[in-house]
Amino acid sequence: MDRKIKIGIIGAGRIGKMHAENIRANFSNVEIKSVADLFADKIKDWANSIGINNIFVDPAMILEDEEIDAVLICSSTDTHSRLIMDSARAGKHIFCEKPIDFNLERIHQALDSVEKAGVKLQIGFQRRFDPSFRKAFEMIRQGKIGDPHILKITSRDPQPPPIDYIKVSGGIFLDMTIHDFDMARYLSGSEVTEVYASGAVLVDPAIGNAGDIDTAVVTLKFENGAIGVIDNSRRSTYGYDQRVEVFGSKGCVSVSNDILTNTVLSDENGITSDKPKYFFIERYKDAYIEEIKAFFDSILNDKQPPVTGIDGLEPVIIGLAAKKSLVEGKPVKIQR
Amino acid sequence: MDRKIKIGIIGAGRIGKMHAENIRANFSNVEIKSVADLFADKIKDWANSIGINNIFVDPAMILEDEEIDAVLICSSTDTHSRLIMDSARAGKHIFCEKPIDFNLERIHQALDSVEKAGVKLQIGFQRRFDPSFRKAFEMIRQGKIGDPHILKITSRDPQPPPIDYIKVSGGIFLDMTIHDFDMARYLSGSEVTEVYASGAVLVDPAIGNAGDIDTAVVTLKFENGAIGVIDNSRRSTYGYDQRVEVFGSKGCVSVSNDILTNTVLSDENGITSDKPKYFFIERYKDAYIEEIKAFFDSILNDKQPPVTGIDGLEPVIIGLAAKKSLVEGKPVKIQR
Amino acid sequence: MDRKIKIGIIGAGRIGKMHAENIRANFSNVEIKSVADLFADKIKDWANSIGINNIFVDPAMILEDEEIDAVLICSSTDTHSRLIMDSARAGKHIFCEKPIDFNLERIHQALDSVEKAGVKLQIGFQRRFDPSFRKAFEMIRQGKIGDPHILKITSRDPQPPPIDYIKVSGGIFLDMTIHDFDMARYLSGSEVTEVYASGAVLVDPAIGNAGDIDTAVVTLKFENGAIGVIDNSRRSTYGYDQRVEVFGSKGCVSVSNDILTNTVLSDENGITSDKPKYFFIERYKDAYIEEIKAFFDSILNDKQPPVTGIDGLEPVIIGLAAKKSLVEGKPVKIQR
Amino acid sequence: MDRKIKIGIIGAGRIGKMHAENIRANFSNVEIKSVADLFADKIKDWANSIGINNIFVDPAMILEDEEIDAVLICSSTDTHSRLIMDSARAGKHIFCEKPIDFNLERIHQALDSVEKAGVKLQIGFQRRFDPSFRKAFEMIRQGKIGDPHILKITSRDPQPPPIDYIKVSGGIFLDMTIHDFDMARYLSGSEVTEVYASGAVLVDPAIGNAGDIDTAVVTLKFENGAIGVIDNSRRSTYGYDQRVEVFGSKGCVSVSNDILTNTVLSDENGITSDKPKYFFIERYKDAYIEEIKAFFDSILNDKQPPVTGIDGLEPVIIGLAAKKSLVEGKPVKIQR
Repeated sequence: MDRKIKIGIIGAGRIGKMHAENIRANFSNVEIKSVADLFADKIKDWANSIGINNIFVDPAMILEDEEIDAVLICSSTDTHSRLIMDSARAGKHIFCEKPIDFNLERIHQALDSVEKAGVKLQIGFQRRFDPSFRKAFEMIRQGKIGDPHILKITSRDPQPPPIDYIKVSGGIFLDMTIHDFDMARYLSGSEVTEVYASGAVLVDPAIGNAGDIDTAVVTLKFENGAIGVIDNSRRSTYGYDQRVEVFGSKGCVSVSNDILTNTVLSDENGITSDKPKYFFIERYKDAYIEEIKAFFDSILNDKQPPVTGIDGLEPVIIGLAAKKSLVEGKPVKIQR
Repeated sequence: MDRKIKIGIIGAGRIGKMHAENIRANFSNVEIKSVADLFADKIKDWANSIGINNIFVDPAMILEDEEIDAVLICSSTDTHSRLIMDSARAGKHIFCEKPIDFNLERIHQALDSVEKAGVKLQIGFQRRFDPSFRKAFEMIRQGKIGDPHILKITSRDPQPPPIDYIKVSGGIFLDMTIHDFDMARYLSGSEVTEVYASGAVLVDPAIGNAGDIDTAVVTLKFENGAIGVIDNSRRSTYGYDQRVEVFGSKGCVSVSNDILTNTVLSDENGITSDKPKYFFIERYKDAYIEEIKAFFDSILNDKQPPVTGIDGLEPVIIGLAAKKSLVEGKPVKIQR
Repeated sequence: MDRKIKIGIIGAGRIGKMHAENIRANFSNVEIKSVADLFADKIKDWANSIGINNIFVDPAMILEDEEIDAVLICSSTDTHSRLIMDSARAGKHIFCEKPIDFNLERIHQALDSVEKAGVKLQIGFQRRFDPSFRKAFEMIRQGKIGDPHILKITSRDPQPPPIDYIKVSGGIFLDMTIHDFDMARYLSGSEVTEVYASGAVLVDPAIGNAGDIDTAVVTLKFENGAIGVIDNSRRSTYGYDQRVEVFGSKGCVSVSNDILTNTVLSDENGITSDKPKYFFIERYKDAYIEEIKAFFDSILNDKQPPVTGIDGLEPVIIGLAAKKSLVEGKPVKIQR
Repeated sequence: MDRKIKIGIIGAGRIGKMHAENIRANFSNVEIKSVADLFADKIKDWANSIGINNIFVDPAMILEDEEIDAVLICSSTDTHSRLIMDSARAGKHIFCEKPIDFNLERIHQALDSVEKAGVKLQIGFQRRFDPSFRKAFEMIRQGKIGDPHILKITSRDPQPPPIDYIKVSGGIFLDMTIHDFDMARYLSGSEVTEVYASGAVLVDPAIGNAGDIDTAVVTLKFENGAIGVIDNSRRSTYGYDQRVEVFGSKGCVSVSNDILTNTVLSDENGITSDKPKYFFIERYKDAYIEEIKAFFDSILNDKQPPVTGIDGLEPVIIGLAAKKSLVEGKPVKIQR
């Protein structure tokens, strides 16, 4: 990677800041020229501390800057599809956090713009870049487990988000399970054809009052005949629980949790190991760097990004089907 | 346990023989006076070798023997409900292998006979007596995980049974998953109110030709609000896969596989541990002894057996609902 | 195994009783005809309960019984070498608990008697029959780890024995570490040429007052060039700690503890597994049966027993060298 | 940390470069103003790529620069003690890689200079900063295992260094085991009073020809009564093996290896997990950052560095005693 890339970051909340810091620390050939955020004033000190000098409120200031090659869209979900279209028209390569949109029509419009403009688009499903999940993926592709028969994903957060966030989150399936839908497609190598969702409010009644559920078990059928199941909870006392298992005709590959330390205490109470890493920022620390590295690599070497627009679209289709299944109390087929 | 118990065993196939040998080796106060089997000739040598001298074709010879306190019904499933009724009328305490019957009407008749006769009836769900599952059960009852939210059971056999057996097995849900339905009730401490079953023929097309499936994922809803999921396969290359996990408001209890040895090889290929014990005879070796011990204990101390007639009935109800769900492609509610 | 074997048991303390019960439960072709114990009165009820009718004080009553093929010597250590000699002269095959004696001269006399009489002698180093250690042994023999370089054995008891026992035990090296010396020879497939022992009284000063130590680290050099280390403690709060590790040119084989159940609790305190099995009776339950099986097999099929007189002698030689090393504060070479 | 620190790095081999890159990526308040290396020409491109513009052959150019607060001494071992003295006289705070020197006299001179100058000195024992070992340390200090009785350290490299390096390495005890001696002091919280070293050439005869050994087992006695044992090999086929175990009156704390991924394959060959991280650069990645962070923290907040000059001295004393023990074939006491 000899060429320099100049980028702008749109949205400097927790995720936007994390990407900026990762880029500064790990990619000496990438310059973060500008950042845009609705609360530009509040991020000034942070931006300066990592050497970003151009701070705007309006993302247009980034899109109109001819020096900038690419943008990272890290703003709130409701702005994603519009910003993708604007960025594509401005000829910028795009890294966009998930989900693209809750509305399939707007996702299609966004993907069309990208296609027309011929820019790169990568969606922020960072879990694919976790070394353990990637190794599972590779083992499956190498045929180590034969044909996949049963796929299981456990995904439990340590704490629910604030109720105000729940209300605009699109619901658990589009906010949280969407990562698991992506993982299901990634590991199975197949598309989902049917969804059946069970759900309950067991963690916090306030989540129910906000119109959402906090506990879910979702069954998936895949084109290749495999059956999948995802279980979710918004609160796990022992930390972030992120496991997968793919069982096939020749064997079974599984990924257990990434625990904080390898330190174990044996005493009269038993054998006690450490807990899993607390949440996504800690667990997917390396994955977040790897996904950005892949994005820059796709620009520099004119390759297809490893998580495409279709990879952004499909989990939303599955998530909407899950929502429908929950309301109707029966399985929902996915037509394409 | 000072008193002596005399018993008869009806059906001396693999399970009947195993119980007989376990009793001989472990319970010096229990005498196996007689055994009845359709192929009495073929079992003579075996019976003599463990000191059983009375070998009959007709179970009536056991039921009419006034010296005999209790019978173990280990014959084929289609004879269970009839033998329960006959044994109850004869005033014998009854240990019966699962399932009681595939027909709910006949199960109710059998249970009525038992109630009228006032004899003990224990059903052979041996997994409840596995030390690991029992410890999980106790931890849940002690409140270690708080309220149960999600229950997961994995149950995969090393090899499918012969196709001829598949044909009379009642189907995977009544033959194999029935143990998992029992485990689900045992660990959740709650009844199942709804079942959704997904299934496929992925292991062997001959199983499909016999009208059954070999791969299944079954979602359960419980009265207490919890959601459960069971996954089954008829063939696991690494041996018998028997795991459970119950996730709740305060924590999660899980049971991993019982592996053959604690010997581990570390070399350039990785860190390789031993496989799970091969199948139920090996995995549940101790559990089979414990269940029989509990049965004798219930007789000697006039206690309710730990696996009752209702515990025999409910998994059949759930299994029939699962069959219906698979056919109809939608969830089936269970009314009681 | 068609032929019947008749045996007598000399010494019916904890170990003698355990062997008797194992034999009764597992070997239908072996009859325990008689038992001899200094406290014959006290064991009468137990003996009758498992069907042994001849109970003597004097072992001669067993040795003079021409019907008896073999004896199990389970009496106190100070009687072993004498009983081996008497049994050999009486033409009985001999299973003897470890150690043969604390005195090398008497061990040689005992082994000579056995050789002259042409009877089988097996020493009770049951750990060799533990499925995990045996698998480690087999992997090493198959060349899975290449040439052994470093051998590590951890052996820690849950509780020290009574001080009165400590006083006649021969000291930690001949009482406890002797099993580890045997394991070291078994796994390395090589003889020990030098011993360096460090020890301390850290568990209980009363053990020090009795002239013994309770904590030890012993370094061994082997003929094949490998180096070994054993660590011992008389008190481990988490139960019986029995692990080995053999590291070689191609890899490393290790055996971890056998834990009580596979049940794991994950909660805000961490991930807690069960403790190791409490002590040798529980941990080596199967091994005790297997060693006796091998003894009977050597008689019935006229084979060399798997743990020979030399296997009984060598650990005593090493143990005496360890004692000397501890006293002298320097390594002690073993000449043969 | 508001103040800026300016540093110079002396020696830009593998370790020096690693520190420089870690500092650039993680400490925005630290400026690497200059670097000195015997092969200044060869490191120019690398230095420029991370923004270091002053590249010298002579370390004096750094020591004479009044703007520079601190130096990192990462040059070859034979230069350490001299550079510590020069840096101390120049009033620079010092981070120095291990070992300070092979000669105790020169170490004392170096430590005297540091004391006179009143500058900070931290020695590069990075393992203390590994999260797992640090957690073990904290648990011990909190009394979780009671009084330490037995301490075990396993340290095996994936590959021996080049023979040319072996020749100037000071031997395995001062090059490799020195880290374990430091860990032993760190975890036991006590000084070593006696050393007994066993060693062999089992990995590569060329190492023996170079006057060194490649396999070692070292027994340590501590002031607090505990006994320790370290085992080392220069070649482990499964990667870097770095484990510790401290057993005490109340329990046992252990640290297992840090494996590459949490991905596990179960198939007919067994249950295969990933290997440990390859070598120290990978395994101690975070520890190297943490140790530098602690060094800067000690400067900014005028605190004693967490690894002092004494911590640099003691392992050399133990290492020299181990060398002597190996030659003499007996334990060596350490007088202070």
